[in-house]
Amino acid sequence: MAPDERTLAERLLAGDKRALARAITLVEDDRPEGWELVRAVYPHTGRASVIGFTGPPGVGKSTLLGALTRAERERGRTVGVLSIDPSSPFTQGALLGDRIRLTEHFLDPGVFIRSMANRGALGGLSEAALQGALLMDAAGRDVVFVETVGVGQAEVDVIDHADTVVLALMPGSGDSIQALKAGVMEIPDVIVVNKADHPLTDTMVREIRGVLSLGPAKEGAWRVPIIKTQAAHGIGIGELVEALERHREYIRSEGTLLERRRRNLMNEVVAIATSRMRRQLEASIREDPSVQELLDEVVARRLDPASAAAEVLARNAERVSPGATDQAG
Amino acid sequence: MAPDERTLAERLLAGDKRALARAITLVEDDRPEGWELVRAVYPHTGRASVIGFTGPPGVGKSTLLGALTRAERERGRTVGVLSIDPSSPFTQGALLGDRIRLTEHFLDPGVFIRSMANRGALGGLSEAALQGALLMDAAGRDVVFVETVGVGQAEVDVIDHADTVVLALMPGSGDSIQALKAGVMEIPDVIVVNKADHPLTDTMVREIRGVLSLGPAKEGAWRVPIIKTQAAHGIGIGELVEALERHREYIRSEGTLLERRRRNLMNEVVAIATSRMRRQLEASIREDPSVQELLDEVVARRLDPASAAAEVLARNAERVSPGATDQAG
Repeated sequence: MAPDERTLAERLLAGDKRALARAITLVEDDRPEGWELVRAVYPHTGRASVIGFTGPPGVGKSTLLGALTRAERERGRTVGVLSIDPSSPFTQGALLGDRIRLTEHFLDPGVFIRSMANRGALGGLSEAALQGALLMDAAGRDVVFVETVGVGQAEVDVIDHADTVVLALMPGSGDSIQALKAGVMEIPDVIVVNKADHPLTDTMVREIRGVLSLGPAKEGAWRVPIIKTQAAHGIGIGELVEALERHREYIRSEGTLLERRRRNLMNEVVAIATSRMRRQLEASIREDPSVQELLDEVVARRLDPASAAAEVLARNAERVSPGATDQAG
Repeated sequence: MAPDERTLAERLLAGDKRALARAITLVEDDRPEGWELVRAVYPHTGRASVIGFTGPPGVGKSTLLGALTRAERERGRTVGVLSIDPSSPFTQGALLGDRIRLTEHFLDPGVFIRSMANRGALGGLSEAALQGALLMDAAGRDVVFVETVGVGQAEVDVIDHADTVVLALMPGSGDSIQALKAGVMEIPDVIVVNKADHPLTDTMVREIRGVLSLGPAKEGAWRVPIIKTQAAHGIGIGELVEALERHREYIRSEGTLLERRRRNLMNEVVAIATSRMRRQLEASIREDPSVQELLDEVVARRLDPASAAAEVLARNAERVSPGATDQAG
């Protein structure tokens, strides 16, 4: 390892915020030093409580995270927040607003906030996000929140690597309730109904209870708590923090924390490997004129997509195989 | 090609429904004969109008598709419907109900309805779904509807291979509106507001108009129509069919149909190739004890996930490479 990375790793393990910021940038930019760094600090991970936070846009996730951060700090814990931003140019304004809601924490050395942009390849992003969470863990954050927007499978993949998964909803989140009901979305560990001053809050809570009563129970005896909050006014946040603590205690005492982490780490290895293969493949499609010709054949309906895919894979295997150069001779 | 597959291909191209059903089962089960068949009939595809249909569960997509199918049949067109079912055991009841809504069409030789189950790997499912759509196209269906449930990236990947993308909403679809607004969900070509007898319908339509006015225009001069329907009573269906026809005419006249199909076919090749690589990888992880040992190292925090992924990829490349056997000697 180069001497400056060792220094960065040491500074990171000591909890230095600038070192952490630099490390996450290296990972986000997919730089070899970044991966090297994660490798170096990985034995020091596994101590943080990683909490995945998802829900449709507009429910006030950033405000909730701001309030949760404050509550965790009051309890003497250090916090990392990793926000996964969607790619659309639409969101620039919204995200700026979100970041402002978290500014009160920017000067607190016990809080580290970072957003990561989706640069098109969700596989790649979720890969980078998980590495980011590991870096925060290594830097000694007691609690790491990984926030993502949306209610689809790809978003769930990102937060599925957490110890505890929180779904944030609000009165009017009919689509998300239906998605839970239809089994499109997995049942989370904790549900928050934010903006609970809305008159339809109790109707919403009843609907959620109805959906939960239909489904199979979560692991063992865990009953998914539904916490009503008004994050903008700090209402219900203490209850939410307690619910997160209860879940953590529960999975720890039941031994499911270890099981979960084993499954999550396996998924992570597959996700990283798949993402790398996919990127390699896309690069070869972009750069290789003979692959472009294959695609022209597909468009002309002379070669079917599956055969083209098999051909691309065969050419790719030749290129990456250690035996390829021997064969070429 | 084996003689019985030739017969199946011939029967499929003649529009035989039983041959089509058999062909889709072969593809769904990932049988080599299925892929062979798609290869054989692929030159006869590209004639159908492929319409992707998505939206949160509960908005009445099956009822809409039933009504649309009736309307297309009245106009003398043959129809294929391919429904992509989510995996949860929760949905059994809902799907049975959905299928019942389509039963009036089961005896019509001009209508072919098929659902495909998600067996965990969405990549694999979307791959099979697209092959299914090609088979329906080859069997001479004039219109092929590909239906999917949900509002996330993975669901969009499935329908993104369509010529026209329809998003179905209903009054109360607040989460989906927010997802459109935040750019988490792509702007579709046509939006349907079903259950339009609800008092909040016009509020909903105004909200959608607001979101559409914020975003970048769709290709060229296309203005996304918002069609109000009450599918259960057949109201608004004629208007919806006309909107679909207008969009098809539009992309044809602008030349964007060819552009779209080129992009979609490229994405399809990448998706099939990635899905195959992923499956191969997962199999090697399941079956190879030495890979299991790698994972144990990851769980023990001695080996980081990215290094484990690199190691798994290296072992995999050795196995699949044509040069590997030479090297082993």
